[in-house]
Amino acid sequence: MTTRPPSGMRDFLPDDVRRRQFVIGVIAEVYERYGFEPLETPALENLETLVGKYGEESDKLIFKILKRGEGGEAGQTDLALRYDLTVPLARVVAEYRAKLPQFFKRYQVQPVWRADRPQKGRFREFYQCDVDVIGSRSMAVEAELLAAAADVFTRLGFREFSIRLNHRRLLAALLDKLRIPAGGHARFLVILDKLDKVGREGVAAELTGQGFEVAAVKALMDTLPHSLDSLEGELPDGGEAIRELREVLALTSLTSAAGRVRFDLGLARGLGYYTGAIFEINVPDLAGSLAGGGRYDNLIGAFSGADVPACGISLGLERILVVMAERGMFPPAVASTPADVMVAQWFAGRAGVSLELAQALRTAGLRVELYPDSPKQDGKDIGRQFKYASTRGIPFVAIIGASELEAGTATVKNMATGEQRTVPRGDAAAAIGRTP
Amino acid sequence: MTTRPPSGMRDFLPDDVRRRQFVIGVIAEVYERYGFEPLETPALENLETLVGKYGEESDKLIFKILKRGEGGEAGQTDLALRYDLTVPLARVVAEYRAKLPQFFKRYQVQPVWRADRPQKGRFREFYQCDVDVIGSRSMAVEAELLAAAADVFTRLGFREFSIRLNHRRLLAALLDKLRIPAGGHARFLVILDKLDKVGREGVAAELTGQGFEVAAVKALMDTLPHSLDSLEGELPDGGEAIRELREVLALTSLTSAAGRVRFDLGLARGLGYYTGAIFEINVPDLAGSLAGGGRYDNLIGAFSGADVPACGISLGLERILVVMAERGMFPPAVASTPADVMVAQWFAGRAGVSLELAQALRTAGLRVELYPDSPKQDGKDIGRQFKYASTRGIPFVAIIGASELEAGTATVKNMATGEQRTVPRGDAAAAIGRTP
Repeated sequence: MTTRPPSGMRDFLPDDVRRRQFVIGVIAEVYERYGFEPLETPALENLETLVGKYGEESDKLIFKILKRGEGGEAGQTDLALRYDLTVPLARVVAEYRAKLPQFFKRYQVQPVWRADRPQKGRFREFYQCDVDVIGSRSMAVEAELLAAAADVFTRLGFREFSIRLNHRRLLAALLDKLRIPAGGHARFLVILDKLDKVGREGVAAELTGQGFEVAAVKALMDTLPHSLDSLEGELPDGGEAIRELREVLALTSLTSAAGRVRFDLGLARGLGYYTGAIFEINVPDLAGSLAGGGRYDNLIGAFSGADVPACGISLGLERILVVMAERGMFPPAVASTPADVMVAQWFAGRAGVSLELAQALRTAGLRVELYPDSPKQDGKDIGRQFKYASTRGIPFVAIIGASELEAGTATVKNMATGEQRTVPRGDAAAAIGRTP
Repeated sequence: MTTRPPSGMRDFLPDDVRRRQFVIGVIAEVYERYGFEPLETPALENLETLVGKYGEESDKLIFKILKRGEGGEAGQTDLALRYDLTVPLARVVAEYRAKLPQFFKRYQVQPVWRADRPQKGRFREFYQCDVDVIGSRSMAVEAELLAAAADVFTRLGFREFSIRLNHRRLLAALLDKLRIPAGGHARFLVILDKLDKVGREGVAAELTGQGFEVAAVKALMDTLPHSLDSLEGELPDGGEAIRELREVLALTSLTSAAGRVRFDLGLARGLGYYTGAIFEINVPDLAGSLAGGGRYDNLIGAFSGADVPACGISLGLERILVVMAERGMFPPAVASTPADVMVAQWFAGRAGVSLELAQALRTAGLRVELYPDSPKQDGKDIGRQFKYASTRGIPFVAIIGASELEAGTATVKNMATGEQRTVPRGDAAAAIGRTP
């Protein structure tokens, strides 16, 4: 029997968990500072809640749960694993409308499951980290989502990130001007979205290959580098979109996102449901984005039947973790030692001597590992205990031997320097200090 | 289409999440102080990993995942949802033996899924919180698990909890003396385990009903109240178990569990895999326990083929949450307000004025909600904004009106007292302070 986790899924050993918790902790703390609140939904949803929401291809990737009892034998299902965090949010907004505030600002960090073919960097269980504001059409929402994201990336140690900004209705005005039929807009944008992966030539080739007119594609490529100012004359139908983008730019300039945000007509975002401003966050030397989102004023409403504006950003938690690991960005304390000090056992069969010292050090605020096994004879295997502390990277070892027992002292060894100090037991915690 | 979560599962709205995070945070912090490290495993396991590990009845409650592609049509499955945290731990210990420390002390707080019939207080998705030490036979392990548990319950505000302690080999010695055949021990203990639910008469009736001898059952009932000292003479085969229990009692008396731990021969624990000390934590006026565990030296080994001692405790997170809610034990700050202050918007179409104040207050460390919508006319709907802050329980509102804009000030209103102060903008954060 294999002891590996299922294909495309991962066990997170302690150092992995600590790194993940560090990033999630920064995200939560920053967004809470902006008034966002945590939401959690079940891993399972009713199958009918999910099916038909993501498109035909994606529906095939939904993990379905076998029905219990007789029906299950025939492959019947009524439950499925969460596929994203947006549909559960829409369901929650519809279900608890009366209990939720008028402006519901929530963040949600939970795993989702997709029956994708596993490949490098692509998992069947992975975390999403979504932040959304439900209930307001104000551009202050876009500005605050981006300001908070800038705070997050800054806090995580990213220095050179940039935020690209565009607007779906501006793109629509452009496509109209290029005489792309409205029915082809979505398909067109999915291809345009590949710009930073396949380049201008790649996008142009795929667009013409898909039957879009060569002249329109050429006109698109000529227009992409244009500024907001020049577009104002060229795309009168995009006037309101341009006004909104200008407001987002003006507002973000008052925040920690100042200088990071730039308009980019080439930003398309693949998903079909965006209706307004869209944005992506990039770092140098990395294809693809570390975060992305936008305004989607019809999706939540489509679910609940009411008209509910919404805007959100999804932080690419798994990619952020990969990039931070590759670039050595985790503070040393994150991949931390399991304890500040290990208390060794000198006396055979007298664990209480060591346990009492361990408890005193814990009370003083230290994280303490008590070496659990008693030596067979007093002090006999003490070398093995020190070696264990060293292997575990625990920076100090504290011990009470025969003379220390009599004198009411403890000896503290700094494992890095080899320095040993024998101090009154009440001073042992101070002699160790807390490692940074 | 229903917008409710699936039967037996729950959405956690922000206040729920905060309460859960508070309890999980206390548990994690305390056990980390004892040198425990976090572990996370996938929600899905290979079906063959789970089946046959929990007994026939439980196997029926495992949620199975429909196989993707053609096979799935016939109801085939190869994956299943995690049913507990012990089998994944055993798998992890077997898989990463070389990477894990000799003494692997892990805590794990993750959901598990069981296709149980939903009923009050019983869910199909619920969190388990397991803490285990792998690799040592020392009683210092039992003592530290219990000391940490005592710290957890104390920190959570439980004052009158008690820890019951027994030993599986002492129970075995008793059953041997009562001439219960070894093959009937497990069944006998499952019934004895109901003692605190159905009482002495209930247990006696069920035991005799199940065919155990009346004389043996009567002798059992007479023996249950006996002390460790008196049992020493009566159950010579239980000598080593008694020695181990004495050591656990002596060691815990040196910790914060002092005075909490008492021997109780009537404690049985239902699970079959325990081999040594067993324990449960109870609070007054509550049937059933809030935590339980014990030593299980053969389970991990059975999985990996190696001989691996283990001891653990499972904290009943869902029950703890219910009891704390019912008894009003959460500190007020936990069901906290979404923000320390709301910044209102006086000027139509000039969100920047408010956003800049919000950013300054955030930089000062406050959690700030910016009222997102701009008023239609300057100051027109300011009453609605104050009302919103009040509904949300936000304790302060800060606002810049026309005179404040000119003077470089801001007005801060204490929503509880109604007091308003107009202060230089740089002093606004200090005028609010951080709510406790």
